[in-house]
Amino acid sequence: MTSPPAGPAGGVLCLPVDGVGEVGDGDDLAQIIVAALGPEGLADGDVLVVTSKVLSKAEGRRVHQTKDAALAAETARLVARRGSTSIVRTHHGYVLAGAGIDTSNTEPGTVLLLPVDPDASARALRERLAGLTGCNVAVVVTDTAGRAWRHGQTDLAVGAAGVAVMHDYAGVGDGYGNELAVTAPAVADEIAAAADLVKGKLARRPAAVLRGLADWVLPPGQHGAGAGALVREEDQDMFGYGAREAVLLALRGDPASRSGFGRAADAAEVVRALTQLGLDVTVTGARVDVRLPDADERMLGRLDATARAALFALGWRFVPRETGSHDPAVLGFEKPTP
Amino acid sequence: MTSPPAGPAGGVLCLPVDGVGEVGDGDDLAQIIVAALGPEGLADGDVLVVTSKVLSKAEGRRVHQTKDAALAAETARLVARRGSTSIVRTHHGYVLAGAGIDTSNTEPGTVLLLPVDPDASARALRERLAGLTGCNVAVVVTDTAGRAWRHGQTDLAVGAAGVAVMHDYAGVGDGYGNELAVTAPAVADEIAAAADLVKGKLARRPAAVLRGLADWVLPPGQHGAGAGALVREEDQDMFGYGAREAVLLALRGDPASRSGFGRAADAAEVVRALTQLGLDVTVTGARVDVRLPDADERMLGRLDATARAALFALGWRFVPRETGSHDPAVLGFEKPTP
Repeated sequence: MTSPPAGPAGGVLCLPVDGVGEVGDGDDLAQIIVAALGPEGLADGDVLVVTSKVLSKAEGRRVHQTKDAALAAETARLVARRGSTSIVRTHHGYVLAGAGIDTSNTEPGTVLLLPVDPDASARALRERLAGLTGCNVAVVVTDTAGRAWRHGQTDLAVGAAGVAVMHDYAGVGDGYGNELAVTAPAVADEIAAAADLVKGKLARRPAAVLRGLADWVLPPGQHGAGAGALVREEDQDMFGYGAREAVLLALRGDPASRSGFGRAADAAEVVRALTQLGLDVTVTGARVDVRLPDADERMLGRLDATARAALFALGWRFVPRETGSHDPAVLGFEKPTP
Repeated sequence: MTSPPAGPAGGVLCLPVDGVGEVGDGDDLAQIIVAALGPEGLADGDVLVVTSKVLSKAEGRRVHQTKDAALAAETARLVARRGSTSIVRTHHGYVLAGAGIDTSNTEPGTVLLLPVDPDASARALRERLAGLTGCNVAVVVTDTAGRAWRHGQTDLAVGAAGVAVMHDYAGVGDGYGNELAVTAPAVADEIAAAADLVKGKLARRPAAVLRGLADWVLPPGQHGAGAGALVREEDQDMFGYGAREAVLLALRGDPASRSGFGRAADAAEVVRALTQLGLDVTVTGARVDVRLPDADERMLGRLDATARAALFALGWRFVPRETGSHDPAVLGFEKPTP
């Protein structure tokens, strides 16, 4: 172990790693990067940022498969689709166009899948770098992703070891007695984005070193929670489906698609939503009752379909009449117990 | 004009700007930053990154208003809401929790709004810095935003002047004859994220300088498209509403909420969606016809409500029977002409 690093006082230096070249199945990526960096290329407290692509190549994730077959295999569920673009949630929990499968920079007929466990890849690379150099270096593994609402793509962290992926200021005040509204910078994603400024898409430069973040690098042997901790759990996700997909799935009401709608709404929200839909709603204990109007059969059918789709999206379920209101003109709903 | 800058060869240096202190209404922010940086603090080709918060303060956007009143005024439309969190599309087009209104770091009883036109603020700051220092410096204005699907927040660009906000590799090959799948890095957002690594939320450090990106800085007088160009237009947005909100709005069918569902679907998608909903669909020219089954009135009401909500989300509209099929058992739909 050398002493803690140089790095510009109070600043962060993003250094490109040149000379990595093509990486193949089974290659020792740590060795390649250390050789590319040259002597004294890494220092204690550095953060090495590598693309998931180069890790995948070293881990033999280049497979002879069609794009469609690979997409199906990597997908946990579809999030949204427009034309030829499918945005999916992968088995890792990442929401990525085309499941993060890379069909560029690969030989025709092959596709490159994400690492099976990018956090594990990051930990292994961190350990190997420590073994080769004696330096305590953190590792961030990146992928490139589009965003809801904004054009273009940015790099973000899909794997991390040796660095906290998020800083938590919850409960910290601002000096005026207000709690800080923004409480958790996703620093691993910001590290990934910063590294992309020097990596470049065309330069075949799959790695960068960030120097000056030594205070954030964990002691040797501590890897931290990993980038998996940045995945928003399904039940906290407001954007589990594209707007169009959400409507079509709620109308179908297939229980398998429920998780993409997040946690069940509270009673106040259910009442507000159903009232806005023109339904006559009353709250009876933990139950919400919809009183059907004195209307013709077709109108009753409309209201029934509307209530069913709304309550599917809200995560509530019908209460059987015999345990509910007992009134044939009343439909009862309740929040499922978790 | 001095000669092009130093900056680490091939690397990017992110430098914090210390000593800015409290900024008040009407303050000359450029002057304050130049003073804080000291002599030779800026060089040609630097990118100055400032928080929207400090610009807002200098522009007198601190207002005596309740949070709710400010939110209503800044909101173009609601995107999603859970509990006390409202995610809205602002009049600028940015999708931000609480419309980017800052209630931290402000005196009690006041809120801080985003600049009226952050790109214009960036241009003015760039011009003023050129006037004060003679240097050709780009400016990026940041805000802090949560993301769909991921925990934590990152800084992104809400204003920019003198730097391309996105690089475009569309049509560029990778050396294997494949077109690069990722074609447009949102570099202004990556610059914002990199700067946040040295700004820090608690350090009251509202600015940073990025050095080493001189190749990306536009000539004096050229400001580029600005961060507004990163806003995804409504008709290209798949996530214009939260999943739950999308369902409730489609069921209501209010035309004012249509734009959040993006552009109208193509006929193939309409047919696929309606078929999956159990409807009997045929395509007749540019029209899609739904044949109502020989069913009871309540079932017909259900199908009618289902078809209406689905077609609202898909952006199609009813064809009046007298111009459509003329068959009372057939509902016709068509894609609106743009």
